[in-house]
Amino acid sequence: MPTLHVELGDRRYPLHIGPGLLDQPDLLQSHLPGRQVLVVTNTTVAPLYLDRVRATLTGLRHHALILPDGESFKTLDTLNQVFTTLLNHRFDRHCAIIALGGGVIGDLAGFAAACYQRGVAFIQIPTTLLAQVDSSVGGKTAVNHPLGKNMIGAFYQPLCVVADTETLNTLPDRELSAGLAEVIKYGLIRDRPFLDWLDAHLEDLINRDPAALSQAIERSCRIKATIVAADERETGERALLNLGHTFGHAIETGMGYGVWLHGEAVATGMVLAADLSARLGWLNPAQVERVRVLLTRAGLPLTPPPELTPDDFLRLMAVDKKVQDGRLRLVLLRDLGQGVIAESVDARQLRATLAADSFG
Amino acid sequence: MPTLHVELGDRRYPLHIGPGLLDQPDLLQSHLPGRQVLVVTNTTVAPLYLDRVRATLTGLRHHALILPDGESFKTLDTLNQVFTTLLNHRFDRHCAIIALGGGVIGDLAGFAAACYQRGVAFIQIPTTLLAQVDSSVGGKTAVNHPLGKNMIGAFYQPLCVVADTETLNTLPDRELSAGLAEVIKYGLIRDRPFLDWLDAHLEDLINRDPAALSQAIERSCRIKATIVAADERETGERALLNLGHTFGHAIETGMGYGVWLHGEAVATGMVLAADLSARLGWLNPAQVERVRVLLTRAGLPLTPPPELTPDDFLRLMAVDKKVQDGRLRLVLLRDLGQGVIAESVDARQLRATLAADSFG
Repeated sequence: MPTLHVELGDRRYPLHIGPGLLDQPDLLQSHLPGRQVLVVTNTTVAPLYLDRVRATLTGLRHHALILPDGESFKTLDTLNQVFTTLLNHRFDRHCAIIALGGGVIGDLAGFAAACYQRGVAFIQIPTTLLAQVDSSVGGKTAVNHPLGKNMIGAFYQPLCVVADTETLNTLPDRELSAGLAEVIKYGLIRDRPFLDWLDAHLEDLINRDPAALSQAIERSCRIKATIVAADERETGERALLNLGHTFGHAIETGMGYGVWLHGEAVATGMVLAADLSARLGWLNPAQVERVRVLLTRAGLPLTPPPELTPDDFLRLMAVDKKVQDGRLRLVLLRDLGQGVIAESVDARQLRATLAADSFG
Repeated sequence: MPTLHVELGDRRYPLHIGPGLLDQPDLLQSHLPGRQVLVVTNTTVAPLYLDRVRATLTGLRHHALILPDGESFKTLDTLNQVFTTLLNHRFDRHCAIIALGGGVIGDLAGFAAACYQRGVAFIQIPTTLLAQVDSSVGGKTAVNHPLGKNMIGAFYQPLCVVADTETLNTLPDRELSAGLAEVIKYGLIRDRPFLDWLDAHLEDLINRDPAALSQAIERSCRIKATIVAADERETGERALLNLGHTFGHAIETGMGYGVWLHGEAVATGMVLAADLSARLGWLNPAQVERVRVLLTRAGLPLTPPPELTPDDFLRLMAVDKKVQDGRLRLVLLRDLGQGVIAESVDARQLRATLAADSFG
């Protein structure tokens, strides 16, 4: 079992990656500060894995909160349900919250842990590929607001992350593809050899070859852990992790949360970012095509939804967190494997990308 | 103008205390990271001071959100109103939120600043005595939950605190008294000479003598700043600042938020804490009487509301943040001027205090 660490000084924490980790009580119990534990999960994941997780919590006072499944429930209202559950069970500030599920559960439960009694212990058990390679690592937690995705949240690091790769066996194909979008992202922004590896092994990943998946997860987490350790609060290079996300958030918010999966929106956003990078002379057409082909092989959409016009995009992107004083910052590609934060994107070039071939 | 500092390394910040500070633009403008500013205030404070504060924000894009006045509005719903306002104005992560008002506004606006886009700049302009000596300093922010006061929040430090002592001229008598409860608290937990000074000058404070008020505010802030700098996240001695608060929160929650002012509930809580300290042999009857007399002179209530039975108290106190694994921790007095964190209070002694003379 590979164990990586996110190096954040006295908040350093381990990422355990491997098969069968759900059944290893020590991975969880060694991190708990008290005897009260709330497992937050959803109606899809609970029947599959909740009993196994609770079986590792013997000797503790544990409860579960089973939420409806989907991005549309990542709201302040659902957050308040978590608080009500904690208070009804008289959980004190030494309790722990365990997120068992995908990115939505992790973001929501993590933000609840950040806020409950001004901060309680938090553990991530990600059960989707997207959560295992991205959202469970790095401490970004949030809920959505009707006017913008992830607008309300906190940087709040877990005490540990337990990624049982066997949970991916039950993942729907569409969710697996969504996770691959983030995997491909790491290659694009930071690691051209990994991109080459992905070109060679994408079918293995789609076919859920355990060795290939483990390798992709470990490499992705290693890149993310390094970036987060260097820039926890995204004052600099951590923004590279947002490749495709400013476009993607516009799709998610504009279409209504949950209509597109996060990874799907990010995939289309990366196509738009690649297109814009080419307009700025940074990528050549063959490189853009290589990005498109890789995402297609991963089963991901390349074209924005026809419901959203370029003007919709510009309006929705203007509230994204990467905006400063009205100037749009975007993560683009200086080359394959080399993401760059473009500080002041030319509005005409951006509009050209939004108006052009990308829109069927 | 005295300027103290809360020494928190790279988050060190100044507390400016004195008359006429509201009209000094530099105190605010030097701390703003961008050009967008939201002033959060309420219907009581806005007509008195909002225009003056906005006049110091020339050259910036500033908006105001005027909330209803009162503890009953310190909720997740009101918090969401702040987020909606920020998003409607397309405020980015480089914006700043200024809290102009008392403890409720400061707690709410500070928590909004902690969460909006995972954290934006925050400045406190406290306009009540309670906020100037206590809630604006130290970074505790929160909203209430129907099942418990301040249960949802964050430790989030402001960039500066501007306490204009002239704003106390418009403070209702009842609010002035509520603030004096926290002033007296500092003497009780930490500073017997200050307690002696308060005995000698309480009428000056009630009569709003500017020099006496300034002195009391500065001394209180100095004590709080020292304690916060040593224990920002309340893992130890910061809990001393909660003298009377576990009892007090039970009164506030049990009676409905806003029926008792926070300072009033804390005053009664300090009487109960003194009574319990005497039962443990730490205070003598004359000392308990001295506490009661000082609080009476400050215009504060000494007796819990008849609506709450001892059983109500025990039930409400069991969810307070000072509880760990069912054992009640209480701040008590080892002596006047010497607060102590009692780790495992004897339930019978506590019940005796709750059942005894304190209850009319």
